[in-house]
Amino acid sequence: MNRQNELNELFELLRFQSISTDSRYKQSMQDCADWLVAKFQRMGLTAEKHATPGHPVVLAKSERKPGRPTVLIYGHYDVQPVDPVEEWNSPPFEPTIVNDIIYARGSTDNKGQHFAHVLGVEETLKEYGDLPVNIIFLIEGEEEIGSPNLDPFLKSHAAELACDVVAVSDTGMVGRGMPTLTYGLRGIACLEFRLRGPKIDLHSGIYGGAVANPSMVAAQLTAGLHDMDARVTVEGFYDAVQPLQDWEREQWAKLPDGEADTLEQTGVPKLHGEAGYSALERRWARPTAEVNGIGGGYQGEGSKTVIGKSAFVKLSFRLVPDQKPTEILKLVRAHLEKHCPDTVRIEIEEGHHGPSYLMDPFSTQGKAAQAALQKAFNREPVLIREGGSIPIVQSFKDVLGVDTLLLGLALPDCQAHAPNENFPVENFDAGIRLNRLLLEELAKA
Amino acid sequence: MNRQNELNELFELLRFQSISTDSRYKQSMQDCADWLVAKFQRMGLTAEKHATPGHPVVLAKSERKPGRPTVLIYGHYDVQPVDPVEEWNSPPFEPTIVNDIIYARGSTDNKGQHFAHVLGVEETLKEYGDLPVNIIFLIEGEEEIGSPNLDPFLKSHAAELACDVVAVSDTGMVGRGMPTLTYGLRGIACLEFRLRGPKIDLHSGIYGGAVANPSMVAAQLTAGLHDMDARVTVEGFYDAVQPLQDWEREQWAKLPDGEADTLEQTGVPKLHGEAGYSALERRWARPTAEVNGIGGGYQGEGSKTVIGKSAFVKLSFRLVPDQKPTEILKLVRAHLEKHCPDTVRIEIEEGHHGPSYLMDPFSTQGKAAQAALQKAFNREPVLIREGGSIPIVQSFKDVLGVDTLLLGLALPDCQAHAPNENFPVENFDAGIRLNRLLLEELAKA
Repeated sequence: MNRQNELNELFELLRFQSISTDSRYKQSMQDCADWLVAKFQRMGLTAEKHATPGHPVVLAKSERKPGRPTVLIYGHYDVQPVDPVEEWNSPPFEPTIVNDIIYARGSTDNKGQHFAHVLGVEETLKEYGDLPVNIIFLIEGEEEIGSPNLDPFLKSHAAELACDVVAVSDTGMVGRGMPTLTYGLRGIACLEFRLRGPKIDLHSGIYGGAVANPSMVAAQLTAGLHDMDARVTVEGFYDAVQPLQDWEREQWAKLPDGEADTLEQTGVPKLHGEAGYSALERRWARPTAEVNGIGGGYQGEGSKTVIGKSAFVKLSFRLVPDQKPTEILKLVRAHLEKHCPDTVRIEIEEGHHGPSYLMDPFSTQGKAAQAALQKAFNREPVLIREGGSIPIVQSFKDVLGVDTLLLGLALPDCQAHAPNENFPVENFDAGIRLNRLLLEELAKA
Repeated sequence: MNRQNELNELFELLRFQSISTDSRYKQSMQDCADWLVAKFQRMGLTAEKHATPGHPVVLAKSERKPGRPTVLIYGHYDVQPVDPVEEWNSPPFEPTIVNDIIYARGSTDNKGQHFAHVLGVEETLKEYGDLPVNIIFLIEGEEEIGSPNLDPFLKSHAAELACDVVAVSDTGMVGRGMPTLTYGLRGIACLEFRLRGPKIDLHSGIYGGAVANPSMVAAQLTAGLHDMDARVTVEGFYDAVQPLQDWEREQWAKLPDGEADTLEQTGVPKLHGEAGYSALERRWARPTAEVNGIGGGYQGEGSKTVIGKSAFVKLSFRLVPDQKPTEILKLVRAHLEKHCPDTVRIEIEEGHHGPSYLMDPFSTQGKAAQAALQKAFNREPVLIREGGSIPIVQSFKDVLGVDTLLLGLALPDCQAHAPNENFPVENFDAGIRLNRLLLEELAKA
């Protein structure tokens, strides 16, 4: 299989509008899963689409041979919504290469990354007719909505999924050409609250001053989540937080992704955050309270002098070891209920959540991953944590009893979750090499 | 002319589908204006339809005789749309009387109210062949869309419209049979600010904790507009505010429109507002800071864990004497710029604004109005202010240099702007009597 064919196949995969959060794309999800099953079958793997109460899981396996380790490679074929679509320079579902960079929704997160592993296995099989390890591919369709059905799937297929280690490429590299092993992730807990005041939008001249404005109360409750030091005010929020280790702070202090880079990548005029920590420490190892969406009252152009009847706030909390997501949601709910005035009615809906993750990067498997990264990129790998959440990593630990090697291929400016998501062709190629080396190193370990 | 003929004529006027905001009714607007011109001419007045860039203005005048005051009566023949039309119990443009209440779009707002004045003048002319004052009727067709062409019309016809006082029946009565003189209105100043942070929506896991979230800063700036007593925190905001007079607080404390009614009308669980003032005082005579719209980040269903790149807040401030709208906008701008952190960029856009209005209800003309109301309803009139703004009242003050007597005939449950708009026949009759008495009282004043 030549390289152009590999890119063509990636493009086929990227063209599926597999937006898991939006029910209008339900059929696209099925079509995408079917396409993956067919691909795995062409490679000579046993592959099946498994129905779930939500979007299907794709499972593919090589013949399980004794005396060699079993490696489970996880990925997800679902993607984030594409809004605001007008800010894309090329259509999000029509992959476009500009200056050797692939632009498409899902190019980095996660189709480009997991498909590099698929092609690595295909190349090895074509070259040797066999693999150095037993391989299992588990590609789900609900990662962007919190993987609600994967945990039950792992549990009901635990014997079939038994393995020695999981490998995932869904995290970041600290910079171009800098191989990166991620040994920790933040957890997440989402919650939305809606405030209801008057039964209809009120004229702000006739009633203004005498009734509470749900949009104003929403602002007050949201603003009240932080103190002047940008610390979260929710009572008990920091009780379980483990402090950073000295060696971590020392390694990270040497990394190039400093404040200047973050300013450059994000375009913000100045960084911001919890007092007493560097920007990387805040992003990777400190918990947050973030408002992901707020809305209330008139949303159109110009002015409309109403007191809107309701307002909503979508919150998410990034968590670190040993904060428990359900415990944090309980604390947040109690905080909101305590501080919401009785001039409006509050409705709280808990959303998806998952725990943080931490593994030992100097374990046998951790060292094998470091060796594969070193060879694939010809450079000493960097050990980091990341600020995002991959709840499934904790599930692998809990249900299958194994660690997960996070071998990210995403660059800092990949625009995951944003317009113009992209993935360099060189990272796609490196991912294919990395897969081949990783399976070799793990077979030796 | 007998009473049945008067009702028949009102019904003819109500049947015109004079919806100013909807271009499909452009011809109905012309027909309605023509009908009014013909009516005025039959009464013996000089009347003319004046074209504007929008809908026409109808102007009618009695012969201007020296030695008597000139009274300008303002009204509007345009009406609100009728949606949702299926919630009407009778067709909106087919007037129907049930239990002595006229149901029709425009019955209260404003055809019923201004046509009572027209018929009052007609009755006086029929009885005496003359009027005690010089009369000018100014009936516009764009009140429901903000009177965009009335101010230029006033300016270009200022000499022709010269008068001693304006009378308008387009406000409310505090209750059935309770004659009401409105002597004050709040002003308004609108302002929108937008906060821009990152150049794109950021992944809240990757960057959360290290960059400011524009939605969070929007919430903080919005929440920061009030203190714990629900007073506005903008520096200097209250400096020009005239305190309520003792007699006002005493009168208003006796009014029936208390807290229970406001709870019932609005459906809020509890009232809210500035410490130290009753609900009516807060609505009529205290300034406010209101958020009319707020938005930032993800607006769809479910969750999207982003740090949105920008957020907006639409604010309006209801103003009372002697707050100057442009001065208030300057103070608010300074406040926002001072409190906005340098981790985001703020853009402030000032919107429409208009001053508050206050006339002395005990002036000669105010007393004449009170006397007319007292005789028309056989009950002591109530003196109130209102919380909304009627920009045209300020235009009469600015362009023509005269006060406006607001002699409302609308009941609290008149359903103006809503389905089943209605106007009691007794208020129509009272309006005709009120006009005759008002002209007599003003002639004596």
